[in-house]
Amino acid sequence: MERVCLVLVRARNPNNIGAVARAMHGFGFTDLRLVNDYPVSLERARSAVDADDLLQSARMFSSVEEAVADCHLVVGTTAVGERTLEHPMHALASAGDLIRSSASLGQVALLFGSEKTGLSNEAMSHCHWLLTIPMQEHAGVRHPSMNLGQAAAVCLYELVRSAKEAARGAERPLAVSSDVERITMLLGEVLGSIGYAKRRPASAEPAEIRRMVHRLSLTQSDARRWIGVLRQVLWTISG
Amino acid sequence: MERVCLVLVRARNPNNIGAVARAMHGFGFTDLRLVNDYPVSLERARSAVDADDLLQSARMFSSVEEAVADCHLVVGTTAVGERTLEHPMHALASAGDLIRSSASLGQVALLFGSEKTGLSNEAMSHCHWLLTIPMQEHAGVRHPSMNLGQAAAVCLYELVRSAKEAARGAERPLAVSSDVERITMLLGEVLGSIGYAKRRPASAEPAEIRRMVHRLSLTQSDARRWIGVLRQVLWTISG
Repeated sequence: MERVCLVLVRARNPNNIGAVARAMHGFGFTDLRLVNDYPVSLERARSAVDADDLLQSARMFSSVEEAVADCHLVVGTTAVGERTLEHPMHALASAGDLIRSSASLGQVALLFGSEKTGLSNEAMSHCHWLLTIPMQEHAGVRHPSMNLGQAAAVCLYELVRSAKEAARGAERPLAVSSDVERITMLLGEVLGSIGYAKRRPASAEPAEIRRMVHRLSLTQSDARRWIGVLRQVLWTISG
Repeated sequence: MERVCLVLVRARNPNNIGAVARAMHGFGFTDLRLVNDYPVSLERARSAVDADDLLQSARMFSSVEEAVADCHLVVGTTAVGERTLEHPMHALASAGDLIRSSASLGQVALLFGSEKTGLSNEAMSHCHWLLTIPMQEHAGVRHPSMNLGQAAAVCLYELVRSAKEAARGAERPLAVSSDVERITMLLGEVLGSIGYAKRRPASAEPAEIRRMVHRLSLTQSDARRWIGVLRQVLWTISG
């Protein structure tokens, strides 16, 4: 998470800047960057007591270009309805995975625009893709439904949440494709030798077996075990 | 989600009430209740344009008891560090599941306290359990790191997110326990008849086989298929 920085472009309301800092502090992020045409006073924003250090170390830039100069992935956040043809768009949940895997390789920037106008076209032109928080569609409403502090809090929560989930998954590495393929082959042979393939040919098609094996989401060690079991089943049947 | 109401206890800052309403509106919640000793003016809160209808229909109560009278589950939200011995505490991600399953049976209330003092002991006494948003622990900091609008947004995001995930899961109902048990038994017989149980007794213990079958997270239809395959394997081997 130390590789993910938040960039607030033209944020002017010190309460909102303070709220973003508090959410960052709470979720364990530290790198806040502000892009403004003119210097912004953080005096009032600094009322966010427990995020004070974070605000004091926030860096000011006069352009998005300078603010993201060290980042190899730049993600713009946008409200539903602000789709642009120029940029791919990801919903927050899937964006979380993409951001985390990029952050393992280098610095990632998450851009938030001003509440009134969002990110300008110029700011978006620095983004590789856009992220949106899925919201209910309400007829005739174009404006974002949350303020800057809320949108940042939800995005950071998702990054932390999905990182925890990924860490849990990493404790149980999944089987490599070659093992999945070997199980598919062995299982196909077993189904053939027990007469299952004749009685239910549709279920014994290689593609169907492969899908069924994929659905098991086998771990590496379980995959090895199943390969051993299936081999011995075949050996016993043919022996 | 129409069965989940948000109850703000002693919230006084109209900006925060407005922010909560905007998050509710964005995530598809409609039932907002306010508990205050004295009438609170929502004039300023009503500046949250797109959540105006929601605020207009918000109900005012003078006590928590009255506000949650129709609810069969009352969940209090609390900052990390405010643990009480009297109440079980769940982190947001697991709380989401509990809240959703309760909401399928009746009305659920999610209580938020004032920013300064959180929920009072009296307010907590109406809660069945407490929910907390997991945050980084910072030495010496006791206060919550986010404001009311942010905390509500994160909670509602999690409820909507986990509901979507559950809906995806519901399309592929998991195998019932009796089928998992049958597969465990059949697999044990197969391991015995192919000599695997003799060579690797630890891997062929019933409890170990059961864990391995559970890890497959079989769907109902896949479980039926595996039962058929294992039966025919046994029949072939013994035949």
